[in-house]
Amino acid sequence: MAQVIADRRDIDFVLHEQLEVENLSKHPLFADFDKETVDMIVSTARDLALRYIHPTLKIGDEIGCKYENNKVITPDEFKTAWQAMKEGDWFAIDRPREAGGQGMPCTVAAAARTYMIGANMGLMFPVHLIHGPGMLIELFGTEEQKALYLHNLYTGTWGCTMMLTEPDSGSDLSHLKTTATRNPDGTFNITGNKIFTSCGDQDLTENIIHLVLGRIKGAAPGAGGISLFLVPKFRINPDGSLGERNDVYCTGIENKMGHHSTPSCSMTLGGRGACIGTLLGPENTGLSSMFVMMNKFRHIVGIQGMSVASSAYLYALAHARNRIQGARLGDPEMTPIPIINHPDIRRMLMTMKMITEGTRSMLYYIANVEDKRDTAETPREREIYDNVLNFLIPVAKSYVTDRAVEICNLGMQIFGGYGYIKEYPTEQLVRDVKILTIYEGTNGVQSMDLMGRKLMIKGGRLFRDFLGEVRKSLESFKDVPDIRAFVQAMEAAVDKLEAVGEHLTRTVKGGDLENAYLYACPFMDVVGDIMVAWMLLWRAVVAKRKFATGEPIPDPDFYTGQIHTAETCMRTMLPVTSARMAVILDSCNAPMEITDEAFGGR
Amino acid sequence: MAQVIADRRDIDFVLHEQLEVENLSKHPLFADFDKETVDMIVSTARDLALRYIHPTLKIGDEIGCKYENNKVITPDEFKTAWQAMKEGDWFAIDRPREAGGQGMPCTVAAAARTYMIGANMGLMFPVHLIHGPGMLIELFGTEEQKALYLHNLYTGTWGCTMMLTEPDSGSDLSHLKTTATRNPDGTFNITGNKIFTSCGDQDLTENIIHLVLGRIKGAAPGAGGISLFLVPKFRINPDGSLGERNDVYCTGIENKMGHHSTPSCSMTLGGRGACIGTLLGPENTGLSSMFVMMNKFRHIVGIQGMSVASSAYLYALAHARNRIQGARLGDPEMTPIPIINHPDIRRMLMTMKMITEGTRSMLYYIANVEDKRDTAETPREREIYDNVLNFLIPVAKSYVTDRAVEICNLGMQIFGGYGYIKEYPTEQLVRDVKILTIYEGTNGVQSMDLMGRKLMIKGGRLFRDFLGEVRKSLESFKDVPDIRAFVQAMEAAVDKLEAVGEHLTRTVKGGDLENAYLYACPFMDVVGDIMVAWMLLWRAVVAKRKFATGEPIPDPDFYTGQIHTAETCMRTMLPVTSARMAVILDSCNAPMEITDEAFGGR
Repeated sequence: MAQVIADRRDIDFVLHEQLEVENLSKHPLFADFDKETVDMIVSTARDLALRYIHPTLKIGDEIGCKYENNKVITPDEFKTAWQAMKEGDWFAIDRPREAGGQGMPCTVAAAARTYMIGANMGLMFPVHLIHGPGMLIELFGTEEQKALYLHNLYTGTWGCTMMLTEPDSGSDLSHLKTTATRNPDGTFNITGNKIFTSCGDQDLTENIIHLVLGRIKGAAPGAGGISLFLVPKFRINPDGSLGERNDVYCTGIENKMGHHSTPSCSMTLGGRGACIGTLLGPENTGLSSMFVMMNKFRHIVGIQGMSVASSAYLYALAHARNRIQGARLGDPEMTPIPIINHPDIRRMLMTMKMITEGTRSMLYYIANVEDKRDTAETPREREIYDNVLNFLIPVAKSYVTDRAVEICNLGMQIFGGYGYIKEYPTEQLVRDVKILTIYEGTNGVQSMDLMGRKLMIKGGRLFRDFLGEVRKSLESFKDVPDIRAFVQAMEAAVDKLEAVGEHLTRTVKGGDLENAYLYACPFMDVVGDIMVAWMLLWRAVVAKRKFATGEPIPDPDFYTGQIHTAETCMRTMLPVTSARMAVILDSCNAPMEITDEAFGGR
Repeated sequence: MAQVIADRRDIDFVLHEQLEVENLSKHPLFADFDKETVDMIVSTARDLALRYIHPTLKIGDEIGCKYENNKVITPDEFKTAWQAMKEGDWFAIDRPREAGGQGMPCTVAAAARTYMIGANMGLMFPVHLIHGPGMLIELFGTEEQKALYLHNLYTGTWGCTMMLTEPDSGSDLSHLKTTATRNPDGTFNITGNKIFTSCGDQDLTENIIHLVLGRIKGAAPGAGGISLFLVPKFRINPDGSLGERNDVYCTGIENKMGHHSTPSCSMTLGGRGACIGTLLGPENTGLSSMFVMMNKFRHIVGIQGMSVASSAYLYALAHARNRIQGARLGDPEMTPIPIINHPDIRRMLMTMKMITEGTRSMLYYIANVEDKRDTAETPREREIYDNVLNFLIPVAKSYVTDRAVEICNLGMQIFGGYGYIKEYPTEQLVRDVKILTIYEGTNGVQSMDLMGRKLMIKGGRLFRDFLGEVRKSLESFKDVPDIRAFVQAMEAAVDKLEAVGEHLTRTVKGGDLENAYLYACPFMDVVGDIMVAWMLLWRAVVAKRKFATGEPIPDPDFYTGQIHTAETCMRTMLPVTSARMAVILDSCNAPMEITDEAFGGR
């Protein structure tokens, strides 16, 4: 059977041949994760995904989550899948063991997640929601909070939400209006309204712990007066048993384009009674605490994008192999052939392959950098990996999801008219994938984080450490013959990227913030392109080295395919990326100079 | 009130200041169409669109067309709108008067269509369907066929379909299986199954005339054995009155991602009785006859794309002006401002403006070329315009709709989370617009037409005449100061495009068809980019000349806006287009060389 979520051969290639993940097991932290264990984890995740999660994909879209009397009701198949995930302990796979997690390397978790998310990203959303609040409780929680919450969260017994957005506070949370009033016992009474709360209610877990951003009465206005609260759906007795219903209710769910497996809820806190919560972490540090957990979540959103794109690619590929239409160019007999033979279909498939595999490597690489940071031997090594990780996280979220939208649309195109109808799988993917560019910080916000923060902080050290890692890697490719021209092209591209980063930094320091931010998204795009190009060249180097050993290779097509994919990237994508970098350097300011009136439309 | 379909100021600018459409009225064919008449037509179309057609947009999406017992039932509001269009005689606006049309210049019809299509392209689809078969009856019909059909079609009393696609014949129609058996009276009995027949049934018109592609029993296999038939839903008595029900039935409608106002039908002909049709035009010339009408239809699909993009732009613009979120960069007070002030929002709005206005000019220009052909004074002039028209038609269909998908997605992005929910208008536009890249010949098929046919035929004369028109126009811009650098950049781009065309021609002539077709879509993209850049530069030239007159200008912002838009295009888009041309010249063949197996997924 054709694979429908992700190509296992490719995942294994990235884990073992590109990233050599089993090297991590040399460190005590990951000593258990030898090759055999890693393979077993990926196989188990794939089986779980195919058996329990994938069957919910269409059900989630067509039946979806229903709202009745302040409650969200999920399809029965969701409950079966949730139960299977509970039995396999899939809720906190890369949280530390001492906190109740599985202690898996992030790299391996990323591979496992590819299957589970690709099977139904909407059903997996409440699973990932547990990570954010969980991490914050690990970091900032009192011993009591840890004892009360972590076990139930990390076993999937309780769920989580993140209640951030309000009707007038979306991308900018600093003006939010939710208010917390201190009670004599140290708890808080919380009142407010939230929107777009993913899984604000659901019937998969016994309780739901809402992580709420709000302002303690009397706190400063703006970002500096925001605190974080844990607000359970059912209050929790000191012994951990469930108490009475807390006054936090779902008042409706959004009617969306797709992503129907995840209910997007409007929520009211303290509307009719007392909504009791406890402070998490120090007062007035809510926003900065939030950002601690954002890294993990944004990486997961990147995996959502890559996994959906991967699925769109595999569906399109299977269709292209089976659909008979048209003849080979110039064939006088006009013998009908599978459309995979047509150049334009091949061009589209190659684009899909290039981006799917390039972003897969990128996301696993970023996870691997996190693992390497956590197992680093020197402070400098640890710092480098931390810098590279922080620099690349917005790229993982934004670049990957922007490309995923394009890939799903290409997948639809390969299906022709069939692609547009609900009978075929790609139609849903096109609708679902678009949410990824919007939620968890729009891609515009991610780009502002990359250009305005990650590029600037620590005197540009994050960016320089990132460039250093790329250059070191390119240097190591130089022993491979007949790939030198590509290595040189990549080195030139990296030099140009450095110039672009320096140019943007100068623009910011010179005070022309608006001009610099005009190129935040274009900067994101070129950083992402260069990541993809680097990853694909790296893959080709692995393939070339494999052939150079002279040993028999059971699947040579896989390896020649890596070389063809890298060649396509170097010769068709990288020159365009280079032109885009030149555009950033040119800094046209017309979109700022044009008057509001001139946009027209009055 | 903010405009929601198209910016009237911009439409008037293109008609009167850029294309000087009233010049057409110097010719007897269009003598009635002076400025006042043109303006009245556009105003009437806009009023009709806003009053009757736009209210069907959401109804069409949410209620849509229902299928019951072989019948398609449309919402009541559709019937009201259809009646209003009948009263205003809007069905054959640019067909000749002697055939029963309004005899409007195509340029003016394009402007009128912008409003009507932008109001609900799905409801307008059956209106445009009348054009194709109508034109073919004008050209190839017997006097009897003309007398029986044309008046009823061109008054919207009867509707039309085009029955082309079969389950195994989509992009390649040469193997279709629908069969026609000759009856003694000269009519044919037709049997077959068709899919994706737009408006295969509807209850807006008294009768439906199906234009059916089929093969006469005994005809040659392949494209050379296909004929065209007129198959009425109700047979037509010699006096023009309706006779008994013909055996052509809708057997179901597709459940699609969007475009719900237009039912996509599965059809059965001659399944239970006699399906009687008459031959249209000579036997075995059906496919080539079809292509005669395709020009008009493909141009209309381009207008569909531009109109939906235009609407997405205006919605996003209004939202950006009203939505308060975030503060100006570096503002210590953090005073909330409308998001139109944020650089990234402005970048997106500018992209939307650039493409909407550039493609609007492009589509009106193409219509204008058709009008100029029909009023040409010399055979050579006529030939030039005909060549330019034929070269650009696939660009109008494919490039414009590819960009329209991107523009609608950008529009959603500007709305943030609101963009993804059905409560706001953009969600529907994103779903609707995607069909345009697929139907009426996928954009891949259009690109094959552009590169493999239009570039090659007549020894490359179409392409050379197109380049000649662009160069002549650029030459005429040289009297305008401070725009010279952009004119030079455009001239360099046009030279490079010529080299690309020659390179692809050589590749085809050298026999490497596959490599050439690999770059058919990339060629389409660069031709379209250069059209947009030319159109925007032309607009800026008009604006510069306006300022140079020294006369008072009531709306100077509109004109400075044209200059800023052109500058953005020249400095941010054109350099990337140039890199894309270099990629085509480089001709990487890896997507053909990679083995099928290497795509993976087994």
